[in-house]
Amino acid sequence: MRKEILDLLKTAGDTYISGEEIADKLGVTRTAVWKHIKELRRAGYDIVSQAHSGYALKGAPDVLTPEELAPLLEGSLFGTNILYHEETRSTNEDGKAAANAGAPDGTVVVTEFQGTGHGRLSRGWFCPKGEGVLFSVILRPTSFLPQEAPKCTLLAAVAVARAIRSLGLDVGIKWPNDILAGGKKLVGILTEMSAEMERIHYIVIGIGINVNIAADEFSPDIQDTATSLSILAGHTVDRRQLLAAILHEMETLYIAVQKDGFAPMFDAWRALSVTLGQDVSVLAPGETFEGRALDIDDTGALLVDTAAGRRRVLAGDVSIRPKGWKGKR
Amino acid sequence: MRKEILDLLKTAGDTYISGEEIADKLGVTRTAVWKHIKELRRAGYDIVSQAHSGYALKGAPDVLTPEELAPLLEGSLFGTNILYHEETRSTNEDGKAAANAGAPDGTVVVTEFQGTGHGRLSRGWFCPKGEGVLFSVILRPTSFLPQEAPKCTLLAAVAVARAIRSLGLDVGIKWPNDILAGGKKLVGILTEMSAEMERIHYIVIGIGINVNIAADEFSPDIQDTATSLSILAGHTVDRRQLLAAILHEMETLYIAVQKDGFAPMFDAWRALSVTLGQDVSVLAPGETFEGRALDIDDTGALLVDTAAGRRRVLAGDVSIRPKGWKGKR
Repeated sequence: MRKEILDLLKTAGDTYISGEEIADKLGVTRTAVWKHIKELRRAGYDIVSQAHSGYALKGAPDVLTPEELAPLLEGSLFGTNILYHEETRSTNEDGKAAANAGAPDGTVVVTEFQGTGHGRLSRGWFCPKGEGVLFSVILRPTSFLPQEAPKCTLLAAVAVARAIRSLGLDVGIKWPNDILAGGKKLVGILTEMSAEMERIHYIVIGIGINVNIAADEFSPDIQDTATSLSILAGHTVDRRQLLAAILHEMETLYIAVQKDGFAPMFDAWRALSVTLGQDVSVLAPGETFEGRALDIDDTGALLVDTAAGRRRVLAGDVSIRPKGWKGKR
Repeated sequence: MRKEILDLLKTAGDTYISGEEIADKLGVTRTAVWKHIKELRRAGYDIVSQAHSGYALKGAPDVLTPEELAPLLEGSLFGTNILYHEETRSTNEDGKAAANAGAPDGTVVVTEFQGTGHGRLSRGWFCPKGEGVLFSVILRPTSFLPQEAPKCTLLAAVAVARAIRSLGLDVGIKWPNDILAGGKKLVGILTEMSAEMERIHYIVIGIGINVNIAADEFSPDIQDTATSLSILAGHTVDRRQLLAAILHEMETLYIAVQKDGFAPMFDAWRALSVTLGQDVSVLAPGETFEGRALDIDDTGALLVDTAAGRRRVLAGDVSIRPKGWKGKR
């Protein structure tokens, strides 16, 4: 009912619509309408009322609820099923629980605030409530094997980078899935999987984006390495439009990958990469080495030419060395 | 207490031990001893009693309980934590639940009967109660990546084949993990995993072995393709010894693989393989082809030489074509 009333108010635009008209159209009492209006106001909707004219919607809250997102979604898969939590511990944990309970391909879990959000290798990550875009997508691919699942984390990076670039902001991808602007980090992506050896049960891709975080809100230890879209843009960024754009990009890539394989997506990744062609330091499990990042191979691994020959990097941290930089820091 | 009483009876061997002596040694009343003896009898232990002499253990039930298994285990990792269910739906489901709740590396789930046991690709599998060895092992490897997890299914096959061969029975491995005797199937292995892209949360390897199933107990549709160890041996096989032997082999291989990588284990697999060097039909996702199985590569994939060139098989069913066989069946 709440959604139906909201739809009527949105359709009416600036025009007032009477409580009686709403009640008639939805087949409920005027008292019921009044109660729902009260609830919507409590949820942050700016609904004004005028004697003899009725109600008009002057502003919607900046929230990522299914009601607010649904009208913006273009696809037919991602976001058809949205699970919204105003606050949660972790959208990936929610996503895994939902997937274990049978949630379908393309289910999206969204939140305004994540209590225990973390990125790759359990690194901490924090975003003030309502200032990020924090969500997880459940995938149930049938056309590729568990061994190929790591490629989905590159796919997610391409989708996010494209959506951010559509806002006119210049960002690139650092291997495997960091989204950087001016060398600073904007996005965290954590991909998890449940699988048999020959079949993926599900993949959950968790994405956290620093959207409207002010510069002084970053903790001192990451002020030099992290930034937000609003800092880059110089103004607040519409989180709903951004999330809708990412879901659209992801769905397009996901459908293409299931149909044609990962090669075209890898080309898209290469075009957005800030790692390829650079001198890099690789912090791999058990060792550190340096070289030039040449390309990714058909598994998504980074190929690095070192003094001792070519290395294939499957896991680890890659930092791009400043131009003209020599020796160890 | 039950375990302590059992230990005393086992240590006494054929000698009778009085209820008073047991009560004294364990610091409990004679009534408590009597109650536990009654319980042990109910669980299948053949405990005889004689006036003025006491109790003696004449026979232990054929069960895979921790009490019965513990004395046979040689390792220090696999089986230190045993979860026993007389009946369960699936030891892999139990194993995943235990792993999600924090069960340590090497935890073993054992059952006498599995209600919904299934093998690769959800194929059904059934074994009468108490006639199989049905268990799952939880692994939490730290030295290899999720991409390498499929290799653990080959490791499990090597361990099981070695343990069965130690009984003097001639079995081999059909790629990737079927254990065959005379072309008939003896074992089902289902490996599942929960992972991030760069870190394995856990692997659960479920193993079901046809041990003491009589020929006429197999359903007609699998009588030509399945067999049991007792049929091969011509006598009942000790399930406890077999399970202990498998856990010992698995632990040895698992520790070696974590230390030195998978290459030596692959050599052990090759030595036990009945697939390599054979003409095979490969039923892969979306197609079927024929060729000669040459080797496995360093990912565990099967390399097959076909008329159209070399193929790398990562998933699918491989059937060995009878010698001199030509054309399609």
